[in-house]
Amino acid sequence: MKEVQVYSPATIANLCCGFDVLGMALNEPADEMIFRKSPSPGVHITKILGAQLSKQPDKNVVGVVLEKILHHLSNKKLGIEVEIYKNIKPGSGIGSSAASAAGAAVGANILLGTNLKPIDLIKFALEGERLASGTGHADNVAPAILGGISLVKSYCPLEIISLPSPKKLWATIIHPDIEIKTLDARQILNKKVSMKDAVKQWGNVGALVSALYRDDVYLLNRSLEDFIAEPLRSIFIPAFYALKIECKKVGAIGGGISGSGPSVFMLSKNKDIAEKIAKRMTEIYTFLPIKYRIYISTINNTGVKYNFK
Amino acid sequence: MKEVQVYSPATIANLCCGFDVLGMALNEPADEMIFRKSPSPGVHITKILGAQLSKQPDKNVVGVVLEKILHHLSNKKLGIEVEIYKNIKPGSGIGSSAASAAGAAVGANILLGTNLKPIDLIKFALEGERLASGTGHADNVAPAILGGISLVKSYCPLEIISLPSPKKLWATIIHPDIEIKTLDARQILNKKVSMKDAVKQWGNVGALVSALYRDDVYLLNRSLEDFIAEPLRSIFIPAFYALKIECKKVGAIGGGISGSGPSVFMLSKNKDIAEKIAKRMTEIYTFLPIKYRIYISTINNTGVKYNFK
Repeated sequence: MKEVQVYSPATIANLCCGFDVLGMALNEPADEMIFRKSPSPGVHITKILGAQLSKQPDKNVVGVVLEKILHHLSNKKLGIEVEIYKNIKPGSGIGSSAASAAGAAVGANILLGTNLKPIDLIKFALEGERLASGTGHADNVAPAILGGISLVKSYCPLEIISLPSPKKLWATIIHPDIEIKTLDARQILNKKVSMKDAVKQWGNVGALVSALYRDDVYLLNRSLEDFIAEPLRSIFIPAFYALKIECKKVGAIGGGISGSGPSVFMLSKNKDIAEKIAKRMTEIYTFLPIKYRIYISTINNTGVKYNFK
Repeated sequence: MKEVQVYSPATIANLCCGFDVLGMALNEPADEMIFRKSPSPGVHITKILGAQLSKQPDKNVVGVVLEKILHHLSNKKLGIEVEIYKNIKPGSGIGSSAASAAGAAVGANILLGTNLKPIDLIKFALEGERLASGTGHADNVAPAILGGISLVKSYCPLEIISLPSPKKLWATIIHPDIEIKTLDARQILNKKVSMKDAVKQWGNVGALVSALYRDDVYLLNRSLEDFIAEPLRSIFIPAFYALKIECKKVGAIGGGISGSGPSVFMLSKNKDIAEKIAKRMTEIYTFLPIKYRIYISTINNTGVKYNFK
């Protein structure tokens, strides 16, 4: 194989109640990467468009993942070169680093014919996440690789459960152009949570998982609550509660902070409502001196996509 | 209708990871109660066998529930008399007070033809639970009334989700004859839990709910973990970890403390393994100077049962 072209999706981690354990893959936006075998051993990042990122492999999420895979193969002659086209803005909270990491793992696997299992691809991608955020959280990389909605059952051992995706589900995402570092968003959280809130949270996790198996949007609506992160992290996001309240008025099933923010996602049953939500988001943000982007997407049920020649 | 005879089941609350939100109904043991209309208004507890409990209605779980229902009907002429045969020992941790409360709610509903909805029966039964434990927890009364496995999605508003029960599931329960008051078992718990443990707990709740929808005993096995209550409450239960470890060796899917203890439950796929578990429990407790009872039961998928004439 000469060349592998990869489309690695944005993802929404947490899905409100599922802090650090739930994530969902989107079709839009997605990063593109092109992987080629290189006569020169090691990893070579030849081009990066769309973001200011280091081309030095050990300082780049894609580079780190590729180096880990090459190291795993213990073939010192192997070389990979890669072009990266970032469509998912770093720091947006919709899994930018996870898309890089997941795309790198899948791209290398196809290019080199290593036939790694999905759980191993996730493990390699986690190494990239670790570089980006200091911790290796799987709630973005798992759905990016597997598609659909993933539950991180446990980390030790790493166990991921693919949950059923609702047949008709759209996401509208607003990405306010402000910076919240994943590490800061993590540090604002309390290291301890009240038992009362924890019980409410896992009641909702159980209900949300149930809603997915039943394809019950009404139950999904009632389960999309977050008593742990949202009350604290929402302070960083201008007009967060206005977005939540107003988008529900135009038909949103529910939503909240995407990952650690600043993006806010709202789910809906069809394209028409998804577009109404986008319109309402725009109307609200028009009043603020902040740039923003809005994405409308269906769920990506296949994960990272690729072509090769 | 002259008389309603009720069989109200024991229940296992928490199911390890689902602290305060999950519960499962059993076929054995069950309390029996007989309800009759009385010419004398109010509630009259005429007989209690099997436990030392007050016959004064406002000091008895059955009495409290019946009084609440009579109050709700605002018919001051109505009278109910009830005989109570307690087969579920109070303080055993398998929902003794919940069986009384659930049986009372269902019994009165049938006797008086009030046609209350299950969610309202649960609300009345919660008043009985409040008398017994100081708090109105629904993880025993909900499955006692609905049967099968219940998830308490939220308390405000009260929302209960009936989860699918595995086709083949047996429970073996050992009830060591020691006293742990529900209130004490609650007070030993920390009011705050670490974020790390909370995340592990809701990862398992999501996985357990998933296991039930998939009827996947292997996933059920891996999800029956409790990082919140078990490490603290298990100190009250002699040989708790020996029971867990040894019962798994003879084929238990998993298990833990039933409710707030002291009963310990172990789940299995068939009667043969359920009996092996009972034998292993007996062998362990033979070494201890503590009396105990052992129950073997299938899941009760109908909840409180009744006959009338």
